[in-house]
Amino acid sequence: MNKKRNIYLKMKTLAEAREIILTEFLSQAPLSTEVIPVQDSVGRILSRPVTAELSSPHFHAAAMDGVAVRAVSTFGANPAEPIELKVNENVFYVNTGHVLPENTDAVIMIEHLNILDDHHIQIEAPVFPWQHVRKIGEDIVATELLFPQNHVITPYCLGALITGGIFKVPVKKKPRILVIPTGSELVDWQTSKDALKPGQVLESNSYVLGSLVQDAGGDFSRSEQLIDDPAKIRSAVQTAIDGEFDMVLTVGGSSAGSEDYAKDVILDLGEVLVHGVTIMPGKPIIVGKIDNKPIFGIPGYPVSAIIAFEQFVKPLIDQMKGQPEQARTRIDVEPTRKVASKLGLEEFVRVKLGTVGNRVVATALPRGAGCITSITEADGIIRIPEHMEGLKDNQTIKAELLKPTFAIDNTIVAVGSHDNTLDILADELKAGSSNLSLSSSHVGSMGGLMAVKRGACHLAGSHLLDIEDGTYNVSYLKKFLPDRDVRLINLVMRDQGFIIPKGNPKGIKDIEDLARGDISFLNRQGGSGTRILLDYRLQQRDIDPAQINGYDAEEYTHMSVAVAVLSGTVDVGLGIFAAAKALDLDFIPVVTEQYDLVVPQEHFETAKIQALMDIVNSGTFKERVEALGGYATDKTGQIIL
Amino acid sequence: MNKKRNIYLKMKTLAEAREIILTEFLSQAPLSTEVIPVQDSVGRILSRPVTAELSSPHFHAAAMDGVAVRAVSTFGANPAEPIELKVNENVFYVNTGHVLPENTDAVIMIEHLNILDDHHIQIEAPVFPWQHVRKIGEDIVATELLFPQNHVITPYCLGALITGGIFKVPVKKKPRILVIPTGSELVDWQTSKDALKPGQVLESNSYVLGSLVQDAGGDFSRSEQLIDDPAKIRSAVQTAIDGEFDMVLTVGGSSAGSEDYAKDVILDLGEVLVHGVTIMPGKPIIVGKIDNKPIFGIPGYPVSAIIAFEQFVKPLIDQMKGQPEQARTRIDVEPTRKVASKLGLEEFVRVKLGTVGNRVVATALPRGAGCITSITEADGIIRIPEHMEGLKDNQTIKAELLKPTFAIDNTIVAVGSHDNTLDILADELKAGSSNLSLSSSHVGSMGGLMAVKRGACHLAGSHLLDIEDGTYNVSYLKKFLPDRDVRLINLVMRDQGFIIPKGNPKGIKDIEDLARGDISFLNRQGGSGTRILLDYRLQQRDIDPAQINGYDAEEYTHMSVAVAVLSGTVDVGLGIFAAAKALDLDFIPVVTEQYDLVVPQEHFETAKIQALMDIVNSGTFKERVEALGGYATDKTGQIIL
Repeated sequence: MNKKRNIYLKMKTLAEAREIILTEFLSQAPLSTEVIPVQDSVGRILSRPVTAELSSPHFHAAAMDGVAVRAVSTFGANPAEPIELKVNENVFYVNTGHVLPENTDAVIMIEHLNILDDHHIQIEAPVFPWQHVRKIGEDIVATELLFPQNHVITPYCLGALITGGIFKVPVKKKPRILVIPTGSELVDWQTSKDALKPGQVLESNSYVLGSLVQDAGGDFSRSEQLIDDPAKIRSAVQTAIDGEFDMVLTVGGSSAGSEDYAKDVILDLGEVLVHGVTIMPGKPIIVGKIDNKPIFGIPGYPVSAIIAFEQFVKPLIDQMKGQPEQARTRIDVEPTRKVASKLGLEEFVRVKLGTVGNRVVATALPRGAGCITSITEADGIIRIPEHMEGLKDNQTIKAELLKPTFAIDNTIVAVGSHDNTLDILADELKAGSSNLSLSSSHVGSMGGLMAVKRGACHLAGSHLLDIEDGTYNVSYLKKFLPDRDVRLINLVMRDQGFIIPKGNPKGIKDIEDLARGDISFLNRQGGSGTRILLDYRLQQRDIDPAQINGYDAEEYTHMSVAVAVLSGTVDVGLGIFAAAKALDLDFIPVVTEQYDLVVPQEHFETAKIQALMDIVNSGTFKERVEALGGYATDKTGQIIL
Repeated sequence: MNKKRNIYLKMKTLAEAREIILTEFLSQAPLSTEVIPVQDSVGRILSRPVTAELSSPHFHAAAMDGVAVRAVSTFGANPAEPIELKVNENVFYVNTGHVLPENTDAVIMIEHLNILDDHHIQIEAPVFPWQHVRKIGEDIVATELLFPQNHVITPYCLGALITGGIFKVPVKKKPRILVIPTGSELVDWQTSKDALKPGQVLESNSYVLGSLVQDAGGDFSRSEQLIDDPAKIRSAVQTAIDGEFDMVLTVGGSSAGSEDYAKDVILDLGEVLVHGVTIMPGKPIIVGKIDNKPIFGIPGYPVSAIIAFEQFVKPLIDQMKGQPEQARTRIDVEPTRKVASKLGLEEFVRVKLGTVGNRVVATALPRGAGCITSITEADGIIRIPEHMEGLKDNQTIKAELLKPTFAIDNTIVAVGSHDNTLDILADELKAGSSNLSLSSSHVGSMGGLMAVKRGACHLAGSHLLDIEDGTYNVSYLKKFLPDRDVRLINLVMRDQGFIIPKGNPKGIKDIEDLARGDISFLNRQGGSGTRILLDYRLQQRDIDPAQINGYDAEEYTHMSVAVAVLSGTVDVGLGIFAAAKALDLDFIPVVTEQYDLVVPQEHFETAKIQALMDIVNSGTFKERVEALGGYATDKTGQIIL
């Protein structure tokens, strides 16, 4: 067993693996039929063609309010020589939907009649046969095909089915799919989260996969989670395959580690068709067959699990249902920065998207397969082929959309320094009726200015201190964006200071303490406003950065710095009060700094940015910001440039 | 009451009516919140921003299988001078997901170790701090915003919510919407359809609207159907408004006829904001307000009801939910024939779409608002603005798609003569794994040839008799398509003959009988193969068409002719056996004719048409055709040209 365990089969490409799956299960027994009430059939798939049992209309029907006549009796009528007709003899009052009386074949609208008295009317124009009449079978003819097999029933279809006399509908049974989460580290979230110990993980993959199964038209069941015990997993799989399930997904343990048993179990019970596909995330997927039923070993990292499901499981469900695979909309996008990628693997890079000027810009989200937020925050996915080592910035590439295009058009793209008040802006934008979203990428203040320079964003958050005169941002704009017409608007004034453990165990008081031998520090990345601020203060105090333990260790956000302090990795970091407060850490203010928004002039007057400005200037926004603590809003909304 | 009843308010345009609706209910009380289990929350809308309660990872975690080390202890290692480390002293075996042991900050992959013995390993390269480590909060930091308010929860979001420690989710309650079908003609389909009398209609609108309400995220309830009695309708509306419902839709009686009471009821209980919008279908819509709640009087014709819902009700539901209106994808299409339209009304023309060569061609479906199949068969909707009298053929216009673009790309567009075996072709296409659909429009054989000539279809069904030599189609192709390289393939041989009432009450035997004074006939349209066949026979027998009662009355399909015979409108029509059989009528064969497919050469070799040809040549297709009766398949699939 151990021998097998550490051997991948020859890895397959994405296309090869899909071909194997779809071919291998092409001859699988078709889904059986169930006959269900018509009103429950929306979204289901017809297992047989359905032909109408009733015609519609099933009688000649008046299509207007007026009188029914025989058309020939009106021939020759004109204003000079109107024709007079007798009510209930050769004309008959009808309303829309009424049965056409015998010996009539047309309807004259009530507006076109001269009503002489209760018994006589006059008409001044002839009508043609079948005018304003809905003839028998005009809509539906009994015995004719209403919908072919494999047709997906829509809300509209209910109308045609009921009208055609079909009240029970033969549909394919949903494929029954069991998800078995495995992993000794897993904890059921239904038990108390407070009991979560280091090394334990809340099991969430099965719920994500279950919901994806349902979206794909499958019938989802969840097995309770299993520890990494091959006997237990084998037994659960065997029971599922012997039982009612059409497909089994085990989750976790699909790789080749010492506690990965998915492959062993499948080899024991059936055969492994694929182990390992040259994609990232999703590489350690297993495809197997037991008793002619498909079984998938889904990798345990959440994004790997999702990609593996969407690339391999969903196409098979579609095939079982007799449905085409629904391709996502693909559009051309340009990455805002170059994206590295590994040769030999097709990488699925999750990106934020937004329309800036005439192009859609893409900002890569974190790449780790363990980051579920890298896909919940994504607007799209870029695939970098196996033979490419990455993308240059501004290299056009297709992105598959996870959101509708109008949502991407309605996204305000913020790139630059991070501040927690941007989350409040984002939330207030979603609260309003503007339908706008704020998408922010955190690359530091200088990164933001460079994005403005390249036209890659609608705005950049910046807090760049001019160490000559103590002003913020203005001199940087002159220096780095001399040719760009930009506006500068204050968002907030905020405290920056030392983030330290509760109770200040190392007794840190001042910037001089950073150089102490017993103190480890965590820095922010070069170009960030916080870094410049630190360097300014160090220079003022004549402290050599080389003396500071950890000066070269960099983090990209305030929160990451605070987390490092919380976990005891470092003794102190420089950051904003909000980050310290959020994690219940102590905070020593060092300076109040100015955090501004840089907005290119061509975007400033747009409805998008004006809607954002309305929020910046609103009382609600300022109140929510003040409530965070460590902020002042006196200058909020002020236009500096 | 009567006075009001016949007055429309000043009609509004679509844009005006929408503006009134959205503005009027902007200040409506917001939907209240309910807190639901996370696993039930997919598709729901956050009523509040949600912040994480747990970080993920909540500990520093190994991201690979291998050993954990302190990075500094590896500095300087190289193949010539490997560094030796002691297991469980300065290196520790870990698997992916394990807690990083104290005083370690990096992981070395198992593949990169020299394992000396159980207690010692060697490494030949240094590692940098945090290599292969998932740090605390790398994915989610407790207290940070997970999702803003009004965010729609996706399957992916379940992963982030559970991982972030959110197990109960605050979501907006679904708006509760009551649909009240009205109309004395309505019959509940749950009672026997066999009891359906002339003038009665199976109530189906409420099910269609209910399903659309659910798709739009509303909570649908249905009232039992009501007769046209203002007191009953008023009472039902009053109860709904006083009760739990957020919105009421009455269906039917929204126009200004003598039995239309929706407006009276709304005027009695509240106010009418809009009555009548310049759109078709959907014109007689009523928008009202009772106790600050919206009420809509939805027109009773099925397509009117759908358009009214989608244009007026759905945008309001979206607004109540705090969601943007989801616009349908719009693409450029070209109508295959000119489309007339009424000045002063914005018309929603339902069209079939297909990609022929480089363009997407649109064929208008029947226009009647009573034809539910005109929307169930539609691939898209073209809007002809109020100021236009119609569209020229080949005039590019936008179509809103009802189906995904790949479905339109996978559609085989057939235009031409109608034959029931085309339905079998369509059904067999859907049965296969080709993902193709067949879309046929019935315009007669000559209409089909003209469509081929204009490049508006992939194939045309044709049975044009050359009255000189008794051959089919070939001479017509030479005459009308001299410059087109086309293939001609036999589909079926079929009987045409007289369709007559059961028992042949008028004793019709031969073509001469058509000229009898006591016989009424129904003809097919000029250019149709059937019409040419008739004219050929009449000429052979020297019968003057003017002698035939009904020679000038035209129908477009065999089924329509059969329906006319069934309903006693005419005594006899010329058509195919299948149509007679379908309606249990008698049939007198007059001739066996040849029904062929004309396929332009540029389409013939495509995968689409070859997939169709495979079906034409299959045993299944031939068996199903023979089972219809009146067909022979000896020549089926033969390539004539």
